[in-house]
Amino acid sequence: MEEFDFIRSIQPNFYRQSSVVKGIGDDAAIVRHTNEDIITTVDTMVEDVHFSSKTTKPYHIGYRALAANISDIAAMGGKPTSYVVSIVIPDSWTADELQEIYQGMNGLAKECNMDLIGGDTVSGEQLVLSITVLGTVLKGKARFRSDAQENDIIFVTGTLGDAACGLHILLNASHTDHEKYQYFINRHRMPMPRVSFINQSDAIKRMSLNDISDGIANEANEIAMASDKTLIIDYDKVPSHPQLFDFSSKQKFKWTLSGGEDFELIGTVSNRDWEQLQVIAKQTDTNISAIGIVRNDYKKNGTVWLQHNQELNRLEKSGYTHLRR
Amino acid sequence: MEEFDFIRSIQPNFYRQSSVVKGIGDDAAIVRHTNEDIITTVDTMVEDVHFSSKTTKPYHIGYRALAANISDIAAMGGKPTSYVVSIVIPDSWTADELQEIYQGMNGLAKECNMDLIGGDTVSGEQLVLSITVLGTVLKGKARFRSDAQENDIIFVTGTLGDAACGLHILLNASHTDHEKYQYFINRHRMPMPRVSFINQSDAIKRMSLNDISDGIANEANEIAMASDKTLIIDYDKVPSHPQLFDFSSKQKFKWTLSGGEDFELIGTVSNRDWEQLQVIAKQTDTNISAIGIVRNDYKKNGTVWLQHNQELNRLEKSGYTHLRR
Repeated sequence: MEEFDFIRSIQPNFYRQSSVVKGIGDDAAIVRHTNEDIITTVDTMVEDVHFSSKTTKPYHIGYRALAANISDIAAMGGKPTSYVVSIVIPDSWTADELQEIYQGMNGLAKECNMDLIGGDTVSGEQLVLSITVLGTVLKGKARFRSDAQENDIIFVTGTLGDAACGLHILLNASHTDHEKYQYFINRHRMPMPRVSFINQSDAIKRMSLNDISDGIANEANEIAMASDKTLIIDYDKVPSHPQLFDFSSKQKFKWTLSGGEDFELIGTVSNRDWEQLQVIAKQTDTNISAIGIVRNDYKKNGTVWLQHNQELNRLEKSGYTHLRR
Repeated sequence: MEEFDFIRSIQPNFYRQSSVVKGIGDDAAIVRHTNEDIITTVDTMVEDVHFSSKTTKPYHIGYRALAANISDIAAMGGKPTSYVVSIVIPDSWTADELQEIYQGMNGLAKECNMDLIGGDTVSGEQLVLSITVLGTVLKGKARFRSDAQENDIIFVTGTLGDAACGLHILLNASHTDHEKYQYFINRHRMPMPRVSFINQSDAIKRMSLNDISDGIANEANEIAMASDKTLIIDYDKVPSHPQLFDFSSKQKFKWTLSGGEDFELIGTVSNRDWEQLQVIAKQTDTNISAIGIVRNDYKKNGTVWLQHNQELNRLEKSGYTHLRR
């Protein structure tokens, strides 16, 4: 298939958003958003680094890559609207497989009412999928990592460690286990970013927010550093899926704290707003859990501490290596 | 160098544009542009496909990759404002070389008053540099390929074929020639997109516009197809640098019509506005040349014709292969 034919084959027939002034087909795309700030983020996935064709079908490569970006937009308090795709294609990939990648993106884009508005298609030795997403947020309504305050409740959405467990199953377990743990595999392949929950939470005046792409150990530290506060997390309150208890406590510990790509959210909110946030969560069919509290301890600010087995240990960014176990 | 240190090393200390609400350092970047449409485009360069470290220094890789994007923004009639960078880094590249790539981008960004506001840094086997640029254009003032009308004058900026000649010199010629033809080498390494010219031309009501990234044979055909008109180009009027006559007429012909990456502009404008456009060109120190005329010939619309040596031949998109020579 010629590049031109391929581009035509992935081109949308219509645009979902009325904000698209010019989509694919000129030198660049144009979108119109009045009275809103523009959010942008890029995420890149490389074959054999971020995914393997052994564990990931082309559809899921596209889906997950877009999900990662949408999650970043949600973590800013925004609504994703459009995306541009840069793809580096090796000879070994067929046109059908490439189209499946775009179908995976489109599957999620449809859910989120987003449009593919541009891209670049080039050849190379290794498949590289790089997506830039545009989103919008009402002026002054963005959610930053730096907004945590003393006595805030630390919360997370969903259950954690699911995607890491799913990848583990795909890489190691027998076919029977695949069926038994289909939930985790799905969470690895098709994570659903928390867009609707966040877009309903405008009434909450202040919230610090981060998406969980590298595990809460990492993301909580980012909030602690950006806000210059001390985050205390109670391990027993970190939500896990019931089936995660089928695995060793060491595995569960690792996946829950450092397992990436759940694309859930971690944030902090004032005690006063916590009840309202729970109502919003319920309305948007989102599980949220309080997992700890924000302290202002000048000797510890910028760090995260984990309460576990009657001990309080420092939780490093890389939860993998720096924990006493 | 750790990824985190590297990212810190390329992070700007300040933002040039007041439109940057949030730059690097959260889940995504945020920009504010009131009353303007947002333009976005992505361009990807792959090592050994789009550049070779034999002919291109890291600084120029960064510079050219950003130039390609800025040129697309200019071709929409817009002003580039910010960019996000996705880079795939093989082990063989040193931190110094990588920083030079970012310095090359920053060198041009400074000229254009643009900000680096985000990115993604991942590892892989082949260097891939993918840049997404955001720009702005006044509402309803964008320039499209589809706006050519009958009797329009076809114009181009600058001289054509320079970058292709520069690449040829770098690949083939002796060291002496390098000095003699430094002009062409510079045009290949550090093309300057026509931003200021375009940003001064708002008074021109209608203009079709395309940037010359793949040669005018290709770009003129895009205008012809998008506008459903016939473009007639007079080869003798296509502007070349005087030194290009040092090369064979076959080389000159090929480079002028099909040589990519000059990042000049091709467009069409009404006869009535041509004089005013020439004044704007003069004010912005831009050479522009009239090279042909737009016809409305229902049997030929969507195609481009080249007047050369008393013959009128069809000029295909790929000027390389489909021309009688």
